Amino acid sequence: MKDKINLLLTISYCGSNYSGWQVQPNKKTIEGELEGVLSKLFNERIIIVGSGRTDAGVHALNAKANVILPKEFTLKNFYDEKDKFKKLITILNNFLPDDIKIKKIKKVSLLFNARKCAKRKTYVYKVKLFEKSPFEANRFYFLNKNLNVSHMQTCANILLGEHDFSSFCASKTSVTSFIRTIYSIKIKKTKNIVSFEICGNGFLYNMVRIIVGTLIECSLKNLNENEMKKILIGKNRNLAGKTAPACGLYLKNVVY
Amino acid sequence: MKDKINLLLTISYCGSNYSGWQVQPNKKTIEGELEGVLSKLFNERIIIVGSGRTDAGVHALNAKANVILPKEFTLKNFYDEKDKFKKLITILNNFLPDDIKIKKIKKVSLLFNARKCAKRKTYVYKVKLFEKSPFEANRFYFLNKNLNVSHMQTCANILLGEHDFSSFCASKTSVTSFIRTIYSIKIKKTKNIVSFEICGNGFLYNMVRIIVGTLIECSLKNLNENEMKKILIGKNRNLAGKTAPACGLYLKNVVY
Repeated sequence: MKDKINLLLTISYCGSNYSGWQVQPNKKTIEGELEGVLSKLFNERIIIVGSGRTDAGVHALNAKANVILPKEFTLKNFYDEKDKFKKLITILNNFLPDDIKIKKIKKVSLLFNARKCAKRKTYVYKVKLFEKSPFEANRFYFLNKNLNVSHMQTCANILLGEHDFSSFCASKTSVTSFIRTIYSIKIKKTKNIVSFEICGNGFLYNMVRIIVGTLIECSLKNLNENEMKKILIGKNRNLAGKTAPACGLYLKNVVY
Repeated sequence: MKDKINLLLTISYCGSNYSGWQVQPNKKTIEGELEGVLSKLFNERIIIVGSGRTDAGVHALNAKANVILPKEFTLKNFYDEKDKFKKLITILNNFLPDDIKIKKIKKVSLLFNARKCAKRKTYVYKVKLFEKSPFEANRFYFLNKNLNVSHMQTCANILLGEHDFSSFCASKTSVTSFIRTIYSIKIKKTKNIVSFEICGNGFLYNMVRIIVGTLIECSLKNLNENEMKKILIGKNRNLAGKTAPACGLYLKNVVY
């Protein structure tokens, strides 16, 4: 490993035209596009390790991934003292499709793993009320009803802290523990956009989308915080609301 | 025709996921989506007449189309004195995909034809310089070079008025006259976005995209207005620049 260098990438992508992050045969994926460009540039099979897998149609503002590259070749061709890895960023972005962009690259320890070392993740879910906008299709969940932000915030606060989130996990999952910690849920409304920002130490399959779907139902069906409590302690997916559509979800940040 | 009503629709759409305006077998098109929803709602085969055909990937801010509908059924179910056709707009938008939106509907004479009656059309072409933005992929032409707006404006002015635009027409066309009138070309730069707004009495196949591609070359290769004059009077497609990509083009308005 002495001849290797480990780089941490910060990546933004619009997931609308992809079958999610993870490589799948005969499907266009974010990981597949990134590995394809890196493998051609370095003329060898390059594997990247993402901070997590996003589903089909889910976006990222600052996804993280690490990649182990040949040290000498990388530093000689794509690094200089002044601009650091700017040259590598420019070349990768030139080859990547317009809906995937490398924002930052920095050197990390060879022991760093973008998935295993993640301490907390923040997701944002965006709902646009009443007005559908053709050029923002698949960037928002369009809803033709109003939402009561303060009521949803009260219900959301029930979920803060460490809990068993079985009620908020899609049934097809292979995890052994459903215990997760949510550090914060901030719901705000700016003009006709309602955003849900959720930060936690990790998330179960579809957890953010089920939480948002349930909070929307709290507003539309006027369910109160006691009913939210019952959903949480019931540990049963059928108690919670619908899974909100993928197109409104953005991975905002990953902290190490 | 006495039992019919003719409606003029104003439509906005993001063309990224469509094979253009015109219906084609086994392809997703704007016209196809609109006719599909109208035909289901009126329970009969409905034909719409667009102001013109946009190519695959081209967008519209205010495209126009007219549609002849059964008068009694339409007025009884989808019209009221106060809100006019608002109910029809809402229902159509609920059924249409998120990237197609009906903005306005108004009653016109039964003799009105959205294609034949068009007096002038305005297109906007949008170029984003230096910064690619994943969520705006296919909404701009991304260019990693700077453009000289005042130089391009000087060259563009050569094209104003009535001319034979053979040099700015894609070779595969079936028109008999290449004479068109351009009323205005306005080029402006706001932050890192350069927009070309072109208004004329009609446009040949790919004409706006070839004009923009040629103006971009005027800036990048420092061609002057005399060279633009030679391209125009040469009446030869090979003299002009490349066709700019479809993703930057928006049909902005059609005047009757």
